[in-house]
Amino acid sequence: MAVFQRFQRLQTVQLAARWLKPQTCNKAVHKTVTETADRRGHDAAPTRRPFSRVTTEDIGFFSELLPGRTVTDPDVLEACNVDWLKSVKGSSEVLLRPQTTEEVSRILRYCNERNLAISPQGGNTGLVGGSVPVFDEIILSTALMNKILAFDGLSGILTCQAGCVLENLSQYVEERDFVMPLDLGAKGSCHIGGNVSTNAGGLRLLRYGSLRGTVLGLKVVLADGRILDCLAKLRKDNTGYDMKQLFIGSEGTLGVITAVSILCPRKPKSVNVALLGCSSFQNLLETFQICRGMLGEILSAFEFLDASCMSLVEKHLKLINPITESPFYIVIETAGSNSAHDEEKLHSFLEKVMASSLVADGTVATDDAKIKALWSIRERITEALRHDGYTYKYDISLPLEKIYDLVTDMRAHLGNRARNIVGYGHVGDGNLHLNVTSPAKDAALLAAIEPYVYEWTQKWRGSVSAEHGLGLKKRNYIYYSKSPEAVRLMKDFKTMLDPKGILNPYKTLPDDGC
Amino acid sequence: MAVFQRFQRLQTVQLAARWLKPQTCNKAVHKTVTETADRRGHDAAPTRRPFSRVTTEDIGFFSELLPGRTVTDPDVLEACNVDWLKSVKGSSEVLLRPQTTEEVSRILRYCNERNLAISPQGGNTGLVGGSVPVFDEIILSTALMNKILAFDGLSGILTCQAGCVLENLSQYVEERDFVMPLDLGAKGSCHIGGNVSTNAGGLRLLRYGSLRGTVLGLKVVLADGRILDCLAKLRKDNTGYDMKQLFIGSEGTLGVITAVSILCPRKPKSVNVALLGCSSFQNLLETFQICRGMLGEILSAFEFLDASCMSLVEKHLKLINPITESPFYIVIETAGSNSAHDEEKLHSFLEKVMASSLVADGTVATDDAKIKALWSIRERITEALRHDGYTYKYDISLPLEKIYDLVTDMRAHLGNRARNIVGYGHVGDGNLHLNVTSPAKDAALLAAIEPYVYEWTQKWRGSVSAEHGLGLKKRNYIYYSKSPEAVRLMKDFKTMLDPKGILNPYKTLPDDGC
Repeated sequence: MAVFQRFQRLQTVQLAARWLKPQTCNKAVHKTVTETADRRGHDAAPTRRPFSRVTTEDIGFFSELLPGRTVTDPDVLEACNVDWLKSVKGSSEVLLRPQTTEEVSRILRYCNERNLAISPQGGNTGLVGGSVPVFDEIILSTALMNKILAFDGLSGILTCQAGCVLENLSQYVEERDFVMPLDLGAKGSCHIGGNVSTNAGGLRLLRYGSLRGTVLGLKVVLADGRILDCLAKLRKDNTGYDMKQLFIGSEGTLGVITAVSILCPRKPKSVNVALLGCSSFQNLLETFQICRGMLGEILSAFEFLDASCMSLVEKHLKLINPITESPFYIVIETAGSNSAHDEEKLHSFLEKVMASSLVADGTVATDDAKIKALWSIRERITEALRHDGYTYKYDISLPLEKIYDLVTDMRAHLGNRARNIVGYGHVGDGNLHLNVTSPAKDAALLAAIEPYVYEWTQKWRGSVSAEHGLGLKKRNYIYYSKSPEAVRLMKDFKTMLDPKGILNPYKTLPDDGC
Repeated sequence: MAVFQRFQRLQTVQLAARWLKPQTCNKAVHKTVTETADRRGHDAAPTRRPFSRVTTEDIGFFSELLPGRTVTDPDVLEACNVDWLKSVKGSSEVLLRPQTTEEVSRILRYCNERNLAISPQGGNTGLVGGSVPVFDEIILSTALMNKILAFDGLSGILTCQAGCVLENLSQYVEERDFVMPLDLGAKGSCHIGGNVSTNAGGLRLLRYGSLRGTVLGLKVVLADGRILDCLAKLRKDNTGYDMKQLFIGSEGTLGVITAVSILCPRKPKSVNVALLGCSSFQNLLETFQICRGMLGEILSAFEFLDASCMSLVEKHLKLINPITESPFYIVIETAGSNSAHDEEKLHSFLEKVMASSLVADGTVATDDAKIKALWSIRERITEALRHDGYTYKYDISLPLEKIYDLVTDMRAHLGNRARNIVGYGHVGDGNLHLNVTSPAKDAALLAAIEPYVYEWTQKWRGSVSAEHGLGLKKRNYIYYSKSPEAVRLMKDFKTMLDPKGILNPYKTLPDDGC
């Protein structure tokens, strides 16, 4: 058990602060962010479509429907108009905070009749400019739709309103011996409705699969106010087309999700996290293969970061790397029902990868605080990047063996034009987060990155948005991953469900239509 | 380890014959089945819609497009016109056997222009009359589209044509150390395209989730011949609406699936199967709860059958029940990466449920032949029922604690009007297969069962088709599980994608439209 001792060096790991809550809908001022509408050049805003402008009569209607929950205070609106990355900014003058599906229905029916555009907003933690208005769209917040409606302790099926914060749901089901099937860095702020609308992936997808399998039911309000009740609480239902799938991942452009039922797995009795160092990406991939074979059913995450990511979290967040410096780091999590079995599997695996020199160094955590500390290195990379400067973010799916080649190629391609070029992500899902930072917004740098990065991805038949969605920022790159036929069909669906195009306009669909 | 010995009594279990292959598309004669079009009364056929009739010019076109694969031989057609249960029969005069997506595209474009209706057919193993024509629809078989296109041994992603037989795919990936994420009794005949079109559930859903999560990509031909290529081989892709979901489970009414990419899990290194006897359904449910806690991540199936099912497989198939007679039987499967750990978990669990008298008797199998023998008791119930007489089949999802109440209530409700009333199914998924047999078709019996069974299901917000789909037989019961709003939207999708309604008419959608 020499390896076992070697992996017990956890005293050096510091407990990380929680993910910093995005400052959404508070009185923080974001005057420095240029309004999206005023943008020129490569990321110019689309043209405002001929929606009606909000009148005092409209405000009167909303105030009567939602007394005290129709917000026109410019300070509050300022915060809700800006995304978490402070990269886009709308100019909405009304924020609506409904509490029920019926209220959402009345709002949408009214807006559809009046031809008023709507920007649905959950926790506003999206990374592609999908959760804030582009112009003066009315912001429809799910924040007050935050009730848990039911939980079945036998089946693990949770039913709740769309505005429940993911972390609150996690806590609720964990107290009942279950876990949420998804987990992501933004859990302290993001809403389950937003997670479903964007088909959020995150850290547990490897183990529990995507929301397309775990979401069992939805209640959705359509553009004209019709309520579509597909809030089934059944694991199986093959009675006709699965309508709810259309609303998963359509980013609020086809309907507003107001309630969700979701299947929660049993809470594991034993969790272990290991941080390992690898000398090459090839070694990392071989480690992954061995890991899947030896850890099998208890493997719940296999994440990676490169040395540049580690430097950034050390530099900007003062986190400490508890192991020897390496070109690549792996975060492995196991979750199982028997701690002795899990530890034995993990140690056999570690012995094997250390003996074969695939892994150069590593450390294991089994208690909660140390587990959080190790996870924070991986989870807080986004935050560290924000401190590093203006960040160009790419969220790419590729065939597994190709995922790091894109980072290497991008470094060669950009040379010293960027401040940092880093790669991290979900190895198990073939999902790379490529990030490029620069001291400030840099049109020349952007022109060097795009469309190069998208062409590269297309060449390997990857996805230009693995889990972040398209939102405003990526909408026009859809053709790099989708056929014209598929996009045409998307537009047909949009036209059918939202003929006036009032729901989250300028998002997801490319500008060449809709 | 007294329990351990007690569970080694496997010498009494006989190896079962393979699932009998349905006699599809061979020269078997099914003259005894009444044509669906001639049906009267409760299960009367819908009215034939004004599609064109196939002419000699049409046959000429098809023969040129598919030389030697345009079949008009009445004997072959006879078999393809009848479903596996011999419960419905069409009168198609043409069977087309394309080999490529392009051929399917040309067929559909032609049929759409000519207003000719199409009945897509895979392995013809469906149970709701969805896979055979109702009138003279052209049968479009996927049988010759049976090529494996690619397999990625790193990610486990398999890409193949729609007509590949599930068992062949299983064998192919198992040789490469993976398994298919679905398994069902009809695996020797059913096609993967048919599985996806019907969103097949089966025996592994508890562990690997539904096809909505594991199917990564599809190639689909739309009604007008357009090819929709969504054959991504990526675990994650959030670039726009997930169009492929609409074709999963829509039973060939929105498009014809021609290729599939699917994520295969690693092949487990250790598999154990246990057959247990319980004295009550309440004990069975408590056993399930304990099982999920103690077997956790290695639990891959938790199936049940009642004493009547056991009697039927004993009587009609001469299978032998290796344990003491009980009112209820459970088939538990574990699949894991470490046989010592798995056996330890299983034995701890068995000790606990035996000690607490939740389980009265049981036996465990670890080698392949004995595992197959135990599984065959569960898998061959459908076949035994077919020997028992005319079978009324119901495939119901309910809240878990309610699933057997429906069987008990049905027995009280029907009294001695039925020959047998049996219940079995997937406890882990809340899915009951309720079957009622009688010496022959019996209109009075049917009238006593329906709509009683559907009203009962609706009362508990269940699904009237958990995994079998709606097909022809259940189409008009959709409102027991779906809201009028959802059905209206289904019709909108149908109209948009197949305005002439040529694809699998009279199926899935209720008669009150489309």
